[in-house]
Amino acid sequence: MKLYDAPGTPNPLRVRLFLAEKGVDVTIIRCDTSKNEHQTPEFLQKNPSGKVPVLELDDGRCLGESVAICRYIEGIYPSPNLFGNDPFELAYIEMRHRQIELELWTQIETSWDNGPLVTRVKPADQIPAAKRASDANVKRYYARLDEEFSVAEYVAGEKFTVADITLLVGINFATSMVDLKPDDAHVNLWRWHTLVSNRPSVRQCLGQ
Amino acid sequence: MKLYDAPGTPNPLRVRLFLAEKGVDVTIIRCDTSKNEHQTPEFLQKNPSGKVPVLELDDGRCLGESVAICRYIEGIYPSPNLFGNDPFELAYIEMRHRQIELELWTQIETSWDNGPLVTRVKPADQIPAAKRASDANVKRYYARLDEEFSVAEYVAGEKFTVADITLLVGINFATSMVDLKPDDAHVNLWRWHTLVSNRPSVRQCLGQ
Repeated sequence: MKLYDAPGTPNPLRVRLFLAEKGVDVTIIRCDTSKNEHQTPEFLQKNPSGKVPVLELDDGRCLGESVAICRYIEGIYPSPNLFGNDPFELAYIEMRHRQIELELWTQIETSWDNGPLVTRVKPADQIPAAKRASDANVKRYYARLDEEFSVAEYVAGEKFTVADITLLVGINFATSMVDLKPDDAHVNLWRWHTLVSNRPSVRQCLGQ
Repeated sequence: MKLYDAPGTPNPLRVRLFLAEKGVDVTIIRCDTSKNEHQTPEFLQKNPSGKVPVLELDDGRCLGESVAICRYIEGIYPSPNLFGNDPFELAYIEMRHRQIELELWTQIETSWDNGPLVTRVKPADQIPAAKRASDANVKRYYARLDEEFSVAEYVAGEKFTVADITLLVGINFATSMVDLKPDDAHVNLWRWHTLVSNRPSVRQCLGQ
């Protein structure tokens, strides 16, 4: 299998962390998004959305969308389980994961798109009011997470899951690229952040 | 099982359509969001995100997020299959579903939040530039769908899936509530729309 990756971008990193948790090696193909290598006709054949990551199977079939790729990997390498086992656990982890994606990650993305470092959105097309609103949503969500981590060890309870990977990558991106570092007062959120940052898979992928 | 529903809102409708496809009956609890019944302390206990739908199991455990609820139902009522069977099919349907959600649905939501009919966002907090951008994204995505439906019968290929439910509900909402009806020239998209609108489950839920 080949993974089309773009170093420094958050979504491919989610897949690489997932693969590291599973102990699975794939061939990494680097895609330079600053040269629009994710927008060539060849790449759009692999993923019409023009986005990384893409997983290309040995028979040539391709999958886009980081969570869909991770679910495929979970199917063929079931251990350790990161999406849940029985119907309730599968659904509960998916609920928690979607909350992170839809209520936090989309807001970090809006702040990024309308912030100073982005290159894919022209300054003339940026919307400062949208960034102010999404910045506030991110901070509100951090406060909610801090409360949740006062009783739960991981995003979905007692067990490390795919939802923790998404949250870690989202917070690290928000901290380093969007100036949305969680407040030091969020001690429970930082307790969780230290816990997951010290996992061997995370240290391996983030080069710590 | 009880489903907390808010008539007229799109996400609970996705779950009701999914249940109708499965032929499963649940007790429907109507939640009046105009009276903030989804923001009471009791409701926030069931779903801290303060959103409908919520599925409450007979043992009191609750699930939010429409797709998580549908995946739970798929787990306990596997037939007909709507999420996929083997690892690749599961991932492929999830990829197609997420594209609809992340590239179309989120944009319809932004247009709705910044349009004339919404009540949860105050006019002073609306961002007209955000609506112009999301309107354009929705129209671009409709054109992409029209091209895709020239070769694929359903969103994920030959088979009706959960992704078709999401797309149908999204387009109907965009048409009736956000003034974003797909162009008549998108004949392939409308071919698909007629096909899925005529399913017994859809006619039953939409009262046609």
